[in-house]
Amino acid sequence: MPEHTAASRLRLSGLCFVLQILNILLFAVFVRYSPEGSPGQCPPQLNCSRRNQDSGFQQPRFQDVHIQVLLSFGLLVAFLSRYGPGNVAISILVIAFAIQWAVLIQGFFYFFLNGKIYVGAQSMVSADFCTAAVLISIGAVLGRANPAQMLLLALLEVTLCTLNEYILLSLMGVSDSGRSLTVHTFGAYFGLMVSRVLYQPHKDKRKREERQDVGYQTDVFAVVGTIYLWIFWPSFTSTSTVHGNTKNWAVLNTYFSLVASTVATLILSPVLYEESTPRMVQIQDATLAGMAVMGMAGEMLVTPFGALIAGFLVGLISPLGFRFFTPVLYSRLKIQDTCGVHNVHGLPGILGALLGTLLTLLATADTYGDRLELVFPLVAQGSRTVTDQALIQLGALPLTLLLAMLGGRITGAILKTKVLRCSPDEQYMENTVFWEVAEEGRDPRASRKELGISTLV
Amino acid sequence: MPEHTAASRLRLSGLCFVLQILNILLFAVFVRYSPEGSPGQCPPQLNCSRRNQDSGFQQPRFQDVHIQVLLSFGLLVAFLSRYGPGNVAISILVIAFAIQWAVLIQGFFYFFLNGKIYVGAQSMVSADFCTAAVLISIGAVLGRANPAQMLLLALLEVTLCTLNEYILLSLMGVSDSGRSLTVHTFGAYFGLMVSRVLYQPHKDKRKREERQDVGYQTDVFAVVGTIYLWIFWPSFTSTSTVHGNTKNWAVLNTYFSLVASTVATLILSPVLYEESTPRMVQIQDATLAGMAVMGMAGEMLVTPFGALIAGFLVGLISPLGFRFFTPVLYSRLKIQDTCGVHNVHGLPGILGALLGTLLTLLATADTYGDRLELVFPLVAQGSRTVTDQALIQLGALPLTLLLAMLGGRITGAILKTKVLRCSPDEQYMENTVFWEVAEEGRDPRASRKELGISTLV
Amino acid sequence: MPEHTAASRLRLSGLCFVLQILNILLFAVFVRYSPEGSPGQCPPQLNCSRRNQDSGFQQPRFQDVHIQVLLSFGLLVAFLSRYGPGNVAISILVIAFAIQWAVLIQGFFYFFLNGKIYVGAQSMVSADFCTAAVLISIGAVLGRANPAQMLLLALLEVTLCTLNEYILLSLMGVSDSGRSLTVHTFGAYFGLMVSRVLYQPHKDKRKREERQDVGYQTDVFAVVGTIYLWIFWPSFTSTSTVHGNTKNWAVLNTYFSLVASTVATLILSPVLYEESTPRMVQIQDATLAGMAVMGMAGEMLVTPFGALIAGFLVGLISPLGFRFFTPVLYSRLKIQDTCGVHNVHGLPGILGALLGTLLTLLATADTYGDRLELVFPLVAQGSRTVTDQALIQLGALPLTLLLAMLGGRITGAILKTKVLRCSPDEQYMENTVFWEVAEEGRDPRASRKELGISTLV
Repeated sequence: MPEHTAASRLRLSGLCFVLQILNILLFAVFVRYSPEGSPGQCPPQLNCSRRNQDSGFQQPRFQDVHIQVLLSFGLLVAFLSRYGPGNVAISILVIAFAIQWAVLIQGFFYFFLNGKIYVGAQSMVSADFCTAAVLISIGAVLGRANPAQMLLLALLEVTLCTLNEYILLSLMGVSDSGRSLTVHTFGAYFGLMVSRVLYQPHKDKRKREERQDVGYQTDVFAVVGTIYLWIFWPSFTSTSTVHGNTKNWAVLNTYFSLVASTVATLILSPVLYEESTPRMVQIQDATLAGMAVMGMAGEMLVTPFGALIAGFLVGLISPLGFRFFTPVLYSRLKIQDTCGVHNVHGLPGILGALLGTLLTLLATADTYGDRLELVFPLVAQGSRTVTDQALIQLGALPLTLLLAMLGGRITGAILKTKVLRCSPDEQYMENTVFWEVAEEGRDPRASRKELGISTLV
Repeated sequence: MPEHTAASRLRLSGLCFVLQILNILLFAVFVRYSPEGSPGQCPPQLNCSRRNQDSGFQQPRFQDVHIQVLLSFGLLVAFLSRYGPGNVAISILVIAFAIQWAVLIQGFFYFFLNGKIYVGAQSMVSADFCTAAVLISIGAVLGRANPAQMLLLALLEVTLCTLNEYILLSLMGVSDSGRSLTVHTFGAYFGLMVSRVLYQPHKDKRKREERQDVGYQTDVFAVVGTIYLWIFWPSFTSTSTVHGNTKNWAVLNTYFSLVASTVATLILSPVLYEESTPRMVQIQDATLAGMAVMGMAGEMLVTPFGALIAGFLVGLISPLGFRFFTPVLYSRLKIQDTCGVHNVHGLPGILGALLGTLLTLLATADTYGDRLELVFPLVAQGSRTVTDQALIQLGALPLTLLLAMLGGRITGAILKTKVLRCSPDEQYMENTVFWEVAEEGRDPRASRKELGISTLV
Repeated sequence: MPEHTAASRLRLSGLCFVLQILNILLFAVFVRYSPEGSPGQCPPQLNCSRRNQDSGFQQPRFQDVHIQVLLSFGLLVAFLSRYGPGNVAISILVIAFAIQWAVLIQGFFYFFLNGKIYVGAQSMVSADFCTAAVLISIGAVLGRANPAQMLLLALLEVTLCTLNEYILLSLMGVSDSGRSLTVHTFGAYFGLMVSRVLYQPHKDKRKREERQDVGYQTDVFAVVGTIYLWIFWPSFTSTSTVHGNTKNWAVLNTYFSLVASTVATLILSPVLYEESTPRMVQIQDATLAGMAVMGMAGEMLVTPFGALIAGFLVGLISPLGFRFFTPVLYSRLKIQDTCGVHNVHGLPGILGALLGTLLTLLATADTYGDRLELVFPLVAQGSRTVTDQALIQLGALPLTLLLAMLGGRITGAILKTKVLRCSPDEQYMENTVFWEVAEEGRDPRASRKELGISTLV
């Protein structure tokens, strides 16, 4: 069956080629450098995110942008612990494509003027945000989607994620600077829905028992990834809020949420898992969850102990989710969740949105001062009451869930079409083709098993 | 004996829970956001470090803070090479707790006003400095303290380290921006003293021969850690000295000291160790030592060749210490030093303090210019002569040593109490419980041996 | 033959010692802190790079410098995937020496006034650029040069590379801010020429088959290295161009070139290599190539789709070079290229220079605006036409190639002298001495084979 293998390899090559040529053509027709002097500035004529315009949003400095660019890769490194290095090449391919595509799609929504997209530093930041959502979704379907399917998933999700972000931030005026909703919640539920559609009963059993068998390299990546996240995530939740004050709060809140969720996970894990105690992936999950919960609330007046409590709760919920919720999700709803994105991004994202709503309701001009105009510009201008803003923040949650699930359903259906699926006898071949990793003199089958990588659909 | 294991696991859980709830309560009662607009500003009413106030200390920019946050983790990564990944989870737990605790304790000393602690960017920086000292101490006792003991060590050391820092920097007006004394020397001798108290003769022989047996993963971590340190340490020695000029010197000096100590180690190691030549951990030790020596002297007029010479000497001393001093420390003084913190932080810290004293003595208004006010504010204001300042700098060394050793002695005695010690038959269990690492299909005992991890007290 | 081993070990020690003492003495005589207040400022009396002076070059901020310092290490990490950790210690030794030496040599050319070199932040940046060129050259000769030879190579290359840079940037007024020519092309062809001189027929066959046998750790380093490069390289091509606008373009262009070359490599690799598809080292090569091509053209008006096309082409050329060109280079020209620097730095550097020439020819005051003065100061001042500038840019390419090859030829001849060569029977000893790596219970010979490390000359 080598010709099957060759065919599927060349099909991926061909798909990449077509997509890249498409990108180059679209860039040639539409994309120009931002005419402004300062990087990333949003010219008044361009339809920028309303929130940014109204709040006297400063253009991000280059340093901020660079750190920003780090973040999707920090996330990537973090995921590596569950992806295994064999999947990294594919992940980077997906990232490389998603970034180009996101520059285009985000450009059409935000930086489009007179038939041209004007790109600047802000474009890179927005594209990286989108790519983070794609990475989260891929975390859910990993091991059950082939590279070609992942590329198409990126193509569709970037589009839908940008649409959702545009509706929330620009049309509804929702305050979600750390992207609890538009990145974490959207990415997680989109991925889970795709995973549900791609569900195939007979292979999954093998898959799941393999997942337990994570090896040493997993731990190395988990360590490096966790440290990356601890270092850079506070920026992630705070880059959209450049003004001194707000950013200050966002960084401190994320920092406190982070340490509390780490301790909480280490409280719970010895109780939940009898055999072996703290494993790095658990700490990494707690780190991710502790950050996701501060996405929306981070720039609001959480207060230091509020941030500690939120982090503490989410640090308890994430391991509980892995232990009790993921199996139910699998057995009842037939949703598999390879990297547990539901516990790490989905639930904390929803909690973050609820916390943000509560804090919006409690916001007063007294406690916020100048900050009110930055966090809730429409409230500060008097065009909205605090209660209205809180209702809109709350309403953004079901809307995001609806869009994510609907989008995931449609995307899954498209990915399941015959053209993309491999013929049954090809599966084990593909496995060898796409996921091969250089291992040190070990039996390739054994190593594959250790990596938790199984056959592809 | 599984019930023993379960008990000790749950005891750690319980301790974490109690400490975290305590932190949340104390935060709720005391901690508020810094009222100032600019992040990390020290309001004039607050009892900030005198040096900072007097010298027109600028609040650190957020970029600086972020890089700062990096540092304790860079240090962590560096230690990983000797800790082994199995200990990382515990180390991160200790860090997560120590940061919260340090925010509180540092807050009581520096940012306390009207019964409230006002936290800002500066709080994060100070907390990270404290955490670095705790990490150094843990490096000395690693493998002979269980996680519960480490948490208590962090609790006590953060308190004493802040006290020492307050006495030195605020009361005595010592110039130690790169923390040769308050972090490196204090952390090393505190840890060594705790190690001495926890000494247990019959187990140590096994421990020591295992230490030789460091494996491949050690090297991966040593490489990553060394690169982290090269990249970020120059910031560490220069963050407290934000003004252009001084910072400039501190960065250049650290940079030069670093390269010289690296070359020096590679000169000596082939002479000292016959079998195999440069190993990454040796280079990493040289890197750490080359930075520790520039802690106090970094912002002074070391001159470029002075920095080269200091780095060169310390790069020779550190491997000599490992070869000749560590065995003596062990056989005569019954002090074990798992990660060799005495050679890497203790001795270079003392040398750095002596070098700083010498340079203080040589300081003149001519050579320093505007810089004098930044480095020695009290001398610039005329309230002290250069000789006074040098004497005070010199006096800070024995004081730090005294406080560190006394503190370590008391902490060790507390850690040795029966409640914290495990019953003898539990030891091997605990080992399995707390230090388990995911290994690739290897015999767990073998892997443990390779990691240099042994039984716990 | 242990005495042979001991002799060669001590000889390396001695060489390091002499070089380090030489550095300290030269620093003592010549190097002083830059007298200016702001870090890295180039005082008007000093003979700074003309381009910088003329174009109102701003002194780099410290953040930029720190990120800059990162870069040579990012590059190091990237190379690690092919060096293997055993060579890291030697690489770091070479870096530590090269940085000191580059501060001196660059100082004599650019920062020399009244018999003194005035060092500042700019010195660190320049020294790091030089070190990057040395690392590239070492990538070509790796495995066939012993540590002493590498040190001498660094000594000579730093000198010649600075000379080339001085001729190009200061005398000829070439615009090469991202160092396509002065770092990538020079480093690659210098290294290849040295490699040709050191060619030894009977050993190479063994060498080459070993190279195929890269192991797991290679992949870990390739992942970490690639992510480092993605993160920091856009700064590398843009640090010399600090002014808002130009830097903006340089970052965006590099970013786009990067993603396109990554996708291109993944299009080609399944076609070229039948057995296993995307391997991390291939993606890393694409990343490096995609950056090298943007070195000169990055700050010019490549336009976003132009950057995509350039990245795409170079992403195709690099794997084609590995497949078809490297064997020809070896069999016909007797040039071995251990890390494939010709495909990754040499060819993309040349392409980048040609692209830069083309873009220079197309430059008009209209499209560049204020930017013209920054990118082509002499054109903006009217002392040169665009065509003249383009011819000079084009002429810089053969000049660089000539200097690199001539320099490499001479350096190779010096390295081949009897003093530096080991006697034949010593070879296998040396191998054990210099390149030993801590491996986990594996047969040392097997592990060495996996690391692709062979005997030394």
